[in-house]
Amino acid sequence: MPITLVTTVAELHAESARLLAAKRGTSQGLVPTMGALHEGHAALARTAVEQNDVVVASIFVNPLQFGDAVDLDRYPRTLDADLALLDGQGVDIAFAPSVEEVYPGGEPLVRVTSGRLGEKWEGASRPGHFDGALTVVAKLLHYGIPAAGSAGPVGPAAPAGGSGHSGDAGHSGNAGPSGDAGAAGSAPGREGLAAYRAYFGQKDAQQLALVRRMVADLNFPVDIVGVPTVRSADGLALSSRNRFLSGEERDAALVLSRALRLLEQRANAHEPLDLDSAVALVESQPLVELDYFDVVDPASLEPLAENCRETPFRGEGLALIAAKVGPVRLIDNMPLSS
Amino acid sequence: MPITLVTTVAELHAESARLLAAKRGTSQGLVPTMGALHEGHAALARTAVEQNDVVVASIFVNPLQFGDAVDLDRYPRTLDADLALLDGQGVDIAFAPSVEEVYPGGEPLVRVTSGRLGEKWEGASRPGHFDGALTVVAKLLHYGIPAAGSAGPVGPAAPAGGSGHSGDAGHSGNAGPSGDAGAAGSAPGREGLAAYRAYFGQKDAQQLALVRRMVADLNFPVDIVGVPTVRSADGLALSSRNRFLSGEERDAALVLSRALRLLEQRANAHEPLDLDSAVALVESQPLVELDYFDVVDPASLEPLAENCRETPFRGEGLALIAAKVGPVRLIDNMPLSS
Repeated sequence: MPITLVTTVAELHAESARLLAAKRGTSQGLVPTMGALHEGHAALARTAVEQNDVVVASIFVNPLQFGDAVDLDRYPRTLDADLALLDGQGVDIAFAPSVEEVYPGGEPLVRVTSGRLGEKWEGASRPGHFDGALTVVAKLLHYGIPAAGSAGPVGPAAPAGGSGHSGDAGHSGNAGPSGDAGAAGSAPGREGLAAYRAYFGQKDAQQLALVRRMVADLNFPVDIVGVPTVRSADGLALSSRNRFLSGEERDAALVLSRALRLLEQRANAHEPLDLDSAVALVESQPLVELDYFDVVDPASLEPLAENCRETPFRGEGLALIAAKVGPVRLIDNMPLSS
Repeated sequence: MPITLVTTVAELHAESARLLAAKRGTSQGLVPTMGALHEGHAALARTAVEQNDVVVASIFVNPLQFGDAVDLDRYPRTLDADLALLDGQGVDIAFAPSVEEVYPGGEPLVRVTSGRLGEKWEGASRPGHFDGALTVVAKLLHYGIPAAGSAGPVGPAAPAGGSGHSGDAGHSGNAGPSGDAGAAGSAPGREGLAAYRAYFGQKDAQQLALVRRMVADLNFPVDIVGVPTVRSADGLALSSRNRFLSGEERDAALVLSRALRLLEQRANAHEPLDLDSAVALVESQPLVELDYFDVVDPASLEPLAENCRETPFRGEGLALIAAKVGPVRLIDNMPLSS
């Protein structure tokens, strides 16, 4: 079935309910995007389609998370190509609302605030960015709450924390990663509710950590799924900003992923990470102006200083890097495990 | 059926789903409270029971919205009496979680912020109070999202913005204020979702305005219902704080509601409100120390200066008053319409 484009929340709800009923679906996935889609977004959409009966992708360039109007205006808009990409992955509904549909009363007065987790790393150079991002993600997560689907009435004695759907539920061949969308034990799939998952790229690691934290701190009824970063064959992490790099700059930018791979190899080999030498590698590239490069706790994003120098790396970490390459600010990261 | 007390979110979800199924219910009401319940809360519970198939009342003294630990410790806890009052109104479930259940990781990092609407009036003397209140209300509103109920699968061609429940839904004799819980056209009752309403007292007018604004700005899937203030026969607005007033102080406190009635009478008579004379009435009472007394727009809470003096009052307004009476800070308000 080809993708359906809707532009209002009411249409989104009606189309989602119609499809869940038609497919006797018990799960819905949401893929929030700002358009300008590439293979990284395709991986998000593909994962969502594999794990859910109905998949909604939103396309909305959120003015709240841009520091200035020029940056906002400059953000690429490519709706026709975006729809083709989503359709190719099997997404059911594209939700592309206007700014007026999302903010009918102008800028929201009550917002989500990201706290100290949103003030460091990317937040340090983009004040207010993550507050704006979390505020629109909160709205999108609410828009995307699925209707009940075909799970039918819950049993009269459903146990607390049980797997949910009774009766004829779970018959779909497309019900989730484990074949049982209701068994995850988290909020989605609880008794009588369709499972609900939202997909975010590991590429924007701080955004992913903040969305996870928001969902936990404010108890949103959704399961957040992080999807690994997609890279070009030469290692460059895909980004809508890569299109602004010259050929020479693109070559120079490869030093970011090379430095991250170096840390990954050392972690896998249970060696000291020797962050200093990785930093030196990046700084040896004259076209690259390093902003930050550190190894942090994946949830708190606090630096893991003791793991980066002489002792072998142990546990879980996340290497974060940001740099300006020519006119373009790039970010990348690598999960480390040892 | 007597009220069921639950203390964990998992128990709340299981019990709510069980009752919605057993009653073939299509609507759920949530009454958030901090305990120390009185007839004002009984009115909230009664309204919720009239309008919904299943009603949950939460009892949680939220540390986040108290400025200091002494005030928090001093807040009255009367669980047995609270349960009896809620049971008497026909509430199905009392949800009384521990602080650890609501904040398992300690204080939340990501929060809701009330913006300038939370900085004025009560917010001016209680910095951070409304941010803390909105953050816990956001959590409670998410906890209380109802399971699907017995509405069954939605129809294959449900219209956008339509009344929702198809099939055998809407058979309950208790389905809502209009007898059709799904017809309100707002988020609750949308296709395949049980209707969901939350009840707040008009007594805490600024909190009610902020909750309405949060739900609109962040698109929570719930309908907020404001319930009129309950007063003693002598006019004093019911409050858990009234128990701290001496007999003499209680008599003095009556000047607050008398001054509000004066404005109401003038508004009803299409006269100028003459706020100055109402302020003078309050200030004539030596035991009362006035903090603020103004007439504001009910949504923005911005003063309606031009309506308070010489010209006849027109439109919708809200008179807000706060004063210290002996050791007790009291607030009251009166909706005005002309």
